Amino acid sequence: MQLTVIKIGGNIIDHKDKLSAFLKDFAAVKGFKILVHGGGKIASELGKKLGIEPNMVNGRRITDAETLQLVTMVYGGLINKNIVAELQSIGCNAIGLSGADGAVLPAVKRPVAEIDYGFVGDVESGHIKADLIKKLLQYGLAPVFAPLTYDGQGGLLNTNADTVAQEIAKALSQYMTVQLIYCFEKRGVLIDANDDNSVINCITSKDFMELKSRDIITGGMIPKLENAFAAITQGVQEVVIGQAEELAALISGNAGTCIK
Amino acid sequence: MQLTVIKIGGNIIDHKDKLSAFLKDFAAVKGFKILVHGGGKIASELGKKLGIEPNMVNGRRITDAETLQLVTMVYGGLINKNIVAELQSIGCNAIGLSGADGAVLPAVKRPVAEIDYGFVGDVESGHIKADLIKKLLQYGLAPVFAPLTYDGQGGLLNTNADTVAQEIAKALSQYMTVQLIYCFEKRGVLIDANDDNSVINCITSKDFMELKSRDIITGGMIPKLENAFAAITQGVQEVVIGQAEELAALISGNAGTCIK
Repeated sequence: MQLTVIKIGGNIIDHKDKLSAFLKDFAAVKGFKILVHGGGKIASELGKKLGIEPNMVNGRRITDAETLQLVTMVYGGLINKNIVAELQSIGCNAIGLSGADGAVLPAVKRPVAEIDYGFVGDVESGHIKADLIKKLLQYGLAPVFAPLTYDGQGGLLNTNADTVAQEIAKALSQYMTVQLIYCFEKRGVLIDANDDNSVINCITSKDFMELKSRDIITGGMIPKLENAFAAITQGVQEVVIGQAEELAALISGNAGTCIK
Repeated sequence: MQLTVIKIGGNIIDHKDKLSAFLKDFAAVKGFKILVHGGGKIASELGKKLGIEPNMVNGRRITDAETLQLVTMVYGGLINKNIVAELQSIGCNAIGLSGADGAVLPAVKRPVAEIDYGFVGDVESGHIKADLIKKLLQYGLAPVFAPLTYDGQGGLLNTNADTVAQEIAKALSQYMTVQLIYCFEKRGVLIDANDDNSVINCITSKDFMELKSRDIITGGMIPKLENAFAAITQGVQEVVIGQAEELAALISGNAGTCIK
């Protein structure tokens, strides 16, 4: 059994036409598939209208109680249900889920250290309800996850969508062969940040060390790749990083950067 | 197999303490169970903050495009996911659904006649995905439905929660014995509207005709009872109307008005 777990972020969600094009490609993916979506700008824009100011500490966004309600509405309701409805209309039997549904994604509220992130959840990897996800897949459904986890005590928590995708991919790898696709702005990991055609086809753990030391891989790409390697060492067959516009090619190995 | 379908409305949803008490009682219900929740005041209040004015025509609320987005957020996200999370915390394995999830509740946009209700859906009874709901129940899940249906063309539709509950109850009655519980403000159908203790224990179709002709049953109670009788004639074993505060007694036949 082959499962493809695909994560999309704001650069797709925020553009109706790009989202529609992506969903068509997602609907065409063969085999078991799962979509994990991030938040995008909609929550911030709606928050502004409601007078909920983004709460930033040391450049990090804090999820206070008001923001948690906001993201529950926007991620779990508006974005999730509209994606599901659109997928249904193009023949993909999608089902939208938050981490509280079936308690599928249990998490612990991040402990307060230097920064209190508020209602942010760190997934409890060992307790993901992978059996429920498997049953939904076997029924012919394509689960669509909002980046919301469940605290075990009646509350939802805000969780990074990359992490949600990675945790689901790892958990399902006990039952099936899992390919994890991270869609982001670039066509892949680039040798030259200014040249979109300088995509590195494949990166091993050794390559990663070397590219980091030569400052070719820097900034936000470092945690992304660390996440990818963590997934690989915990059962995921393959991680591919690239552009949502090239989904079919990412899956077939003809685009993006492959991490093995 | 015994299934209890329970509908709650704004008089419970809008009060955090009443909702928590009800959810405890719901979690304690034995056998298969489904919760259908309405909207309550939260959507109107949020709409006001966002400058979305309630659009009323001849005293009926119209669901325009903005309002549809609002109720998708509030019903499908905020209310639904918070109810699911709270149920999970008290040992009830809930899963939140809109009509688009698994295309479980297909509907047609109400045709424009004298009034254009906007994005309001009339459920296509014959096409409800009862098999999926049954599978979720058999897995040990308690589905929690937001009053949103699916138009088959990528859109959600706003649908009365009483109707959603009735349609689900009817559809599942092909597989199991179904009891449908409508929770509302009163303890049941009253002989004397000013006396909360004048609850009629049981109403037959013949009683209903007579009570209507004597103006004992009037106003909003008439469509509610018509819905109840429609459910009975289409497979539902029993409908009970009463107060959410008396849930266990409604189920056991010791409170509320029973329609058979």
